[in-house]
Amino acid sequence: MDKKIGFIGLGIMGMPMARNLLNAGFELSVWNRTPSKMDELAKAGAMTGRSAAVVAEWGDVTITMLTDSAAVEEVMVDSYNSVLAGARPDSVVIDMSTISPSVTRSIAGKLSEKGVHMLDAPVSGSLPGATSGTLSIMVGGELEVFERCRPVFEAMGRQITHCGGNGMGQVTKLANQIIGLGNLAAMCEGIVFAAKAGGDPDALLKAFGAGAANSWMVENLGRKVFDGDFAPGFMVDLAQKDLRLVQEAAAEMDMPLITTPLVSQMLRAVQRADSGSEGIQAYVKALEGLAGIEARTTEPG
Amino acid sequence: MDKKIGFIGLGIMGMPMARNLLNAGFELSVWNRTPSKMDELAKAGAMTGRSAAVVAEWGDVTITMLTDSAAVEEVMVDSYNSVLAGARPDSVVIDMSTISPSVTRSIAGKLSEKGVHMLDAPVSGSLPGATSGTLSIMVGGELEVFERCRPVFEAMGRQITHCGGNGMGQVTKLANQIIGLGNLAAMCEGIVFAAKAGGDPDALLKAFGAGAANSWMVENLGRKVFDGDFAPGFMVDLAQKDLRLVQEAAAEMDMPLITTPLVSQMLRAVQRADSGSEGIQAYVKALEGLAGIEARTTEPG
Repeated sequence: MDKKIGFIGLGIMGMPMARNLLNAGFELSVWNRTPSKMDELAKAGAMTGRSAAVVAEWGDVTITMLTDSAAVEEVMVDSYNSVLAGARPDSVVIDMSTISPSVTRSIAGKLSEKGVHMLDAPVSGSLPGATSGTLSIMVGGELEVFERCRPVFEAMGRQITHCGGNGMGQVTKLANQIIGLGNLAAMCEGIVFAAKAGGDPDALLKAFGAGAANSWMVENLGRKVFDGDFAPGFMVDLAQKDLRLVQEAAAEMDMPLITTPLVSQMLRAVQRADSGSEGIQAYVKALEGLAGIEARTTEPG
Repeated sequence: MDKKIGFIGLGIMGMPMARNLLNAGFELSVWNRTPSKMDELAKAGAMTGRSAAVVAEWGDVTITMLTDSAAVEEVMVDSYNSVLAGARPDSVVIDMSTISPSVTRSIAGKLSEKGVHMLDAPVSGSLPGATSGTLSIMVGGELEVFERCRPVFEAMGRQITHCGGNGMGQVTKLANQIIGLGNLAAMCEGIVFAAKAGGDPDALLKAFGAGAANSWMVENLGRKVFDGDFAPGFMVDLAQKDLRLVQEAAAEMDMPLITTPLVSQMLRAVQRADSGSEGIQAYVKALEGLAGIEARTTEPG
């Protein structure tokens, strides 16, 4: 069994995910562009590497958790000390960032030429899921490589789904964002409509949750919208980044999108109004601005 | 306790709702424009009335379940033998149709002048919910009138929510439709995006259900979309009727809608292509036409 894990990218998500691997008994060697983050994890028992290449050479499995397609391409294949430069044949590289499906397939191809297996394994669940080890993980790549890495995934997540070949984890994650953010937009539109008509938040949330309008968004963010609680679980800026990936991937395969681009434009209005670092429930602010009402000031009708 | 119920409107929904009232031990007198429907219920033990006025005069509570605002206005107040003409002071009229909130308030006002109480109580749950007595019922009107009628509602529904004053049941129902149909549109867009990229239906539905993309729509209609099963639970034509009410009500209160009108236009395309009497999951057909792919022909990637 693979016990030595290289971990690259100790950001908001990567840090707690790496900690969960340590807690599960894996040996960890980490690399991060900002060294102070490495010191933090070294205190918890991890080794630190001098470069992505060194960490990848050491690991049976190397995990990357980075911000975007460009960062993943650079660390994986383009830089002098890249993962590609270091990784041993028959080792596995798992990219858990959310990036372009086509960039993912390109990187997988380059690693494959050196005999290195790759899985794309983006996650859903945000910081709470990363911290508690309950992420939903959507995995693309060969089934036997996926099965080999199952213990690694189980240290970080709860719902672990094999979605198909390389890139299909990313495709599934992006489809997930189309649906989740579409549900958010629909919920906010329903709430502002009802609020403008004088609806009572408790009655509305009870009714929405009771039938065909119910969703994860209604159950988890509905109350926050009425309370005006915009603390971030999942940030507007990151949702917008995902919708940009969605729209690029859709363009690459000649897939027309209808409601999703409109959701993205509304999120842009939210970003423009300095709410990009708030939670996605701040979507309601753009609607409130247009409607001239705040849902949280509603008086029962 | 009110035991005598007048029931007006024995359509697809009204018929099973009336049967559930009979089964719960209420005395029923029914009226329907098409008399053959009355005969059907008479065999089950209901009395039949000569007009809406006669039925309303007899009942402690009179229920209407009709197709649209115009039909409710005519039967309630505008016709010679209207409910208003017959109903006794201190009796209750419950309109369970889905109609305009403002028309509802106008009718409630006219009934009130005669000392007749009114509740608006539109339902969610479609034919299966009506048949099994598990409808979600959203009620507007005075709280004490609502409480007085609770046994009547409990014979037909499971989730019974008091939403505020007259019209607020309708407002809640319409907000419910904004959210539910928005969730449907988002789900179909995510599914066609993933299908075009070669996604596997089982893996996709598992991943969607595991996190922030989950919804009643995903749980109840996701599989049908992949299977190309368009049998109606809730018909496209009726969804479109509800979205017309949504857009009229929004216009009346100067409420701009953003994604909802686009969902309505896509449903219009589905209606144009002769799928108006199919289930709302036929929304996917419009997207499939634009994308040049059918979700149900997807091969795992």
